[in-house]
Amino acid sequence: MKFTKDHRSNSVTFAEPSLDLEEVAGGGTSSRHAYDNPALTTSASDLPEALRGETVYRTNLGGSNNFQVIEDPHAQQHTSFKHKLESALLQAKKRFCGVWTKKTLFKRFPILRWLPEYNGDCAVGDLLAGITVGLTVIPQALAYANIAGLPPQYGLYGSFLGCLVYIFLGTCKDVPVGPTAVAALLTFQSLNGKGIEHAILLCFFTGLVQILMGIFGLGFLIDFVSGPVSSGFTSAAALIIVTSQVKDLLGITASGNAFVETWKSIFKDIHNTRLWDTVLGVTCIVILLLLRLVAQINIGKTREPTKVEKMINKFMWVFGTSRNAILMIVCGVVGFFFCQQGEPPFKVIGAVPQGLPDFKVPPFGYNVENNGTVTHVSLSTMISDLGSGIIVVPLVGILENIAVCKAFSNGKPIDATQELIAIGTSNIMNSFIQSFPGTGSLSRSAVNNASGVRTPLGGLYTGILVILALLFFTPYFFYIPKATLAAIIIAAVVFMVEVKVVKPMWRSKKSDFFLAIATFVSCLILPLEQGIVVGIGINLIYILYHAARPKISVEKLFSQQGTEYLLLTPDRCLIFPSTDYVRNLVTKHSIRQGIPVVIDCSHIYGADYTAATVIESLTSDFASRDQPLLFYNLKPSVSSVFQGLSPKDFVVFYNHEDVDDLLKNRSCIKKQMEIDA
Amino acid sequence: MKFTKDHRSNSVTFAEPSLDLEEVAGGGTSSRHAYDNPALTTSASDLPEALRGETVYRTNLGGSNNFQVIEDPHAQQHTSFKHKLESALLQAKKRFCGVWTKKTLFKRFPILRWLPEYNGDCAVGDLLAGITVGLTVIPQALAYANIAGLPPQYGLYGSFLGCLVYIFLGTCKDVPVGPTAVAALLTFQSLNGKGIEHAILLCFFTGLVQILMGIFGLGFLIDFVSGPVSSGFTSAAALIIVTSQVKDLLGITASGNAFVETWKSIFKDIHNTRLWDTVLGVTCIVILLLLRLVAQINIGKTREPTKVEKMINKFMWVFGTSRNAILMIVCGVVGFFFCQQGEPPFKVIGAVPQGLPDFKVPPFGYNVENNGTVTHVSLSTMISDLGSGIIVVPLVGILENIAVCKAFSNGKPIDATQELIAIGTSNIMNSFIQSFPGTGSLSRSAVNNASGVRTPLGGLYTGILVILALLFFTPYFFYIPKATLAAIIIAAVVFMVEVKVVKPMWRSKKSDFFLAIATFVSCLILPLEQGIVVGIGINLIYILYHAARPKISVEKLFSQQGTEYLLLTPDRCLIFPSTDYVRNLVTKHSIRQGIPVVIDCSHIYGADYTAATVIESLTSDFASRDQPLLFYNLKPSVSSVFQGLSPKDFVVFYNHEDVDDLLKNRSCIKKQMEIDA
Repeated sequence: MKFTKDHRSNSVTFAEPSLDLEEVAGGGTSSRHAYDNPALTTSASDLPEALRGETVYRTNLGGSNNFQVIEDPHAQQHTSFKHKLESALLQAKKRFCGVWTKKTLFKRFPILRWLPEYNGDCAVGDLLAGITVGLTVIPQALAYANIAGLPPQYGLYGSFLGCLVYIFLGTCKDVPVGPTAVAALLTFQSLNGKGIEHAILLCFFTGLVQILMGIFGLGFLIDFVSGPVSSGFTSAAALIIVTSQVKDLLGITASGNAFVETWKSIFKDIHNTRLWDTVLGVTCIVILLLLRLVAQINIGKTREPTKVEKMINKFMWVFGTSRNAILMIVCGVVGFFFCQQGEPPFKVIGAVPQGLPDFKVPPFGYNVENNGTVTHVSLSTMISDLGSGIIVVPLVGILENIAVCKAFSNGKPIDATQELIAIGTSNIMNSFIQSFPGTGSLSRSAVNNASGVRTPLGGLYTGILVILALLFFTPYFFYIPKATLAAIIIAAVVFMVEVKVVKPMWRSKKSDFFLAIATFVSCLILPLEQGIVVGIGINLIYILYHAARPKISVEKLFSQQGTEYLLLTPDRCLIFPSTDYVRNLVTKHSIRQGIPVVIDCSHIYGADYTAATVIESLTSDFASRDQPLLFYNLKPSVSSVFQGLSPKDFVVFYNHEDVDDLLKNRSCIKKQMEIDA
Repeated sequence: MKFTKDHRSNSVTFAEPSLDLEEVAGGGTSSRHAYDNPALTTSASDLPEALRGETVYRTNLGGSNNFQVIEDPHAQQHTSFKHKLESALLQAKKRFCGVWTKKTLFKRFPILRWLPEYNGDCAVGDLLAGITVGLTVIPQALAYANIAGLPPQYGLYGSFLGCLVYIFLGTCKDVPVGPTAVAALLTFQSLNGKGIEHAILLCFFTGLVQILMGIFGLGFLIDFVSGPVSSGFTSAAALIIVTSQVKDLLGITASGNAFVETWKSIFKDIHNTRLWDTVLGVTCIVILLLLRLVAQINIGKTREPTKVEKMINKFMWVFGTSRNAILMIVCGVVGFFFCQQGEPPFKVIGAVPQGLPDFKVPPFGYNVENNGTVTHVSLSTMISDLGSGIIVVPLVGILENIAVCKAFSNGKPIDATQELIAIGTSNIMNSFIQSFPGTGSLSRSAVNNASGVRTPLGGLYTGILVILALLFFTPYFFYIPKATLAAIIIAAVVFMVEVKVVKPMWRSKKSDFFLAIATFVSCLILPLEQGIVVGIGINLIYILYHAARPKISVEKLFSQQGTEYLLLTPDRCLIFPSTDYVRNLVTKHSIRQGIPVVIDCSHIYGADYTAATVIESLTSDFASRDQPLLFYNLKPSVSSVFQGLSPKDFVVFYNHEDVDDLLKNRSCIKKQMEIDA
């Protein structure tokens, strides 16, 4: 922390160590120069002097360097290019050396922060939450493997090692790493009919891309997925997942990657609908939705609940929360009895291999035997098969994970870099035990949080439970009806369709609502990963258009001494896509009115070379028309950009009383010239 | 024009017919409601009341609708969605009907505007300029066909019909339509070794894409090519063109599409350098550069020139300006004499077919005979051969043309739509007479302007001259040395390397300088069209980053009654890529200081749904911490976006004196609650 006491203006400037010291300190200190001018002070934050009162400290925070507002031309000169380069090198050196400091160690291994303070209370909370999440993850894992189009055991394979890795690297106590519905769906779409080898390789690359994103600080990329795009994507994904489960619910065979395709395939086979699968599936969905309500029941909430009431509430919450596990066990028992008496009336999962997966290198290429001939599938073929999935799966995965973190952060900032490293490492490790890509699951994190988890150590118990299931319970999974798993998925993901955001989004901003709809529709009709790219693309076009078409308000005013002039106020910064538009508007109004023009630059916080060329041609146009053009309240940093082109007759003023003098001088010169001629 | 007289505030609001009437009139009228509040008035344009004086008229001009600043919540209610839809339909109807009005007719056929006022002076100016340009275009056409890798006559084919079409449709008197160096180079790169059929089809598609861009109002796309990108691209193109001519200058054979490739090929064959080609070529370059200086000589410029001096000046200008034609004729005569005595010591152009080209449909597919077998090349194959050229050639073509228009517009706005239609029609017509793509040429427009052209009718004489050349002079073109044409090109395009912008760009904005360098380098090492896309891409990332990382200034202040609070001032609008960043900064500082927080929203002129969700969570975070959070000077339009999510404890104030009351109330409530508890 650096404090600079300035007695003259009674203000202390401080700069944070995490920011570029030169820039901020320079900007902060120098701003006092500029603000000695009362006109500028008002403009600085639009706050009247009275409200401003006594300044105690001031700093400018980070922000886009490219359009950095530096209030003083001298500061610009101080930070010459050579100087900047030197400080950048210093920063890079610091950053490199910083890898080995204690602070970085604590940042990269968050377990070091919470483990020393671990106590009995934490242990109890983590144990209970870990077991509850474990009971949730086992049925989900079996079901999500089905979404990914893989045998059920692969879901379980991906559900324990990630949790254990996250204990050491994770920053958010509520995140349970493992298979999720959206990740499974994206895996299914990326596989495009290919086998488990591709899924494992995808898991490896997902982890690799996430770690690389973390190392290169690309976590900010997820900022470019806005709320509406994310809502549209998630809702479409939920619908596609429901669609993918309908075939198991009806006991028919259907295939297809996308939404429309799958429904077509379903309707083609709908005449083969099996009665008992359908009955069982629908019953399960109804029971699950009812149990979901049971978990929310709260007896005696209007007054202080008694002990008994508290116990009943607790029991009902546990009962409702473990609904998936309970239903799976009950249906498994039913399936077992039917199987004892011969062919069951509904389809069951079938054999699930017992035991833990082998620990081995992911398949970077493999051999396929077809009619006795062995063909080798190379790594490059596999990568080109996976296509854009290698980018989209890690990106959406981390997006989902950050969404989980945010949901329980209570406004605290998320360390996206560390989360990328944690989830990336989990995925890479998982790829060594034949798992498909996973991430932090929103549904299980809610269970985790509500079960009173205290630290990421809860994942230990979840992991142990899954390992136990793999070691001892797999023979019993044989009897679980497929329709039950389909029901578990449908009853869970149907709430991912974000109907509740429609109304506030419509009320808040119509264009965002249409953006969400557009994303939703394109995710349904295109492959999911292309759909989200369309949504993001439309959203970026919004930003670009918005940069290209600023608003300019036009006012015809009289100065104190009665000179009439035109005041033009652009409302945002001048950068290349908007410059010609602004020039045309300014020229049109100036020629039409033919009176002196003042451009109020209070809101122009940045400019580029293209803007400077336009200002240069504007000033020379005005000079050739002999029409005065003045710039009011132009920030010195922006002014220096304009002055790089040495525009002639470039007049900037900061004090509103100067306008009369400036205009008078100009007309004097003009008259003088007329007399001379 | 619509005037609304409002006696209460003595102001007249007017809205232009070309703008969305409801929006602007609503915004304009309603802004007075908001600005009844003195605090808001100050904020409106940062101009003190004194300077503002008496408002005579006020309007908000167009701008991006998405972030439209509407100063009054009532206005928002008036313009309900249904209302907006209706007005949009009305606009569409008007627009459709508008196609048939007289105004549109005059807009679409600019000849109707200037022809009625055509007089003798205009005729003389146009005749002289047209002939001068004609003398320039003939050598250029032969040379540029060589750049495109096509026989010389195709350059001439593309040099007359475009000029004639432009007379009727063009808006800028100085534009001479025809082959240009950059368009020829892009054609060469798009052809990638394919024949003339591809070039003609490319010409057709170039015209089609340009007309479609004009019809769908996509002219604004060229705004996204900034000054630095354009400079980098043009300079690289010039170097590539020079490179492509070196082989003819040295009389060697070399091939290659890109810069490095071509130089490699040149060095491979450099031992075959022909002495007399080199001598002739270098001599021609030196003569051309000297004659270029002759054109700029101005005797007696320090005083009023005498009649003789004027005539000498005029003569030298004509001599210098027709240097290409003169040199071509002289070298042609030299070549003729050498040819009479057997093999000339340098390469000559060879036979150029005499006569006008046939008027026929462009080749949408053609047959190739190879060793007796005829294979059909289909339209789709041709299109996929041309690849991205179909988009890049029209885009760069119109960019070049608009640059020409701007250079001579004296600041008047350019009708990009009409120019797209004019150049597009010219190209489509040209494709029917076997020409390759062309556009408005910068070098010839300078000649045109300096020769005193008055209207686009100058193109008539240029066209006639080219037609005469085709009909009568082609036999004589046989003897023109190839090295002379290479020299003509090199001496012309070497001035396209924009060395002069380096210094101002560096002074004005360093990042723009590096952008220009990056574009330049990528245009040299990649195919030209990919190079410019890289430059534009980097530039768009600037904008996006800038939208993602606003600056927030932080100040610790005391109110009039001595309450300490934190003032946070974001400097630009809140949209999705920046919201989490802003939230983290606000939360960090608020928690660290633990005093009431005021967010000054004076510079926030727009927000979206994602920002609204963040504000909603911010307010609830502050409420849970029991820390007061106030919003100062939030524009009602932005406020209504935030209120769509009904954030709790959302307090906006516009009058700086309210801050004490608001903070006092909050602490009163807080104390009351503490007493109650």
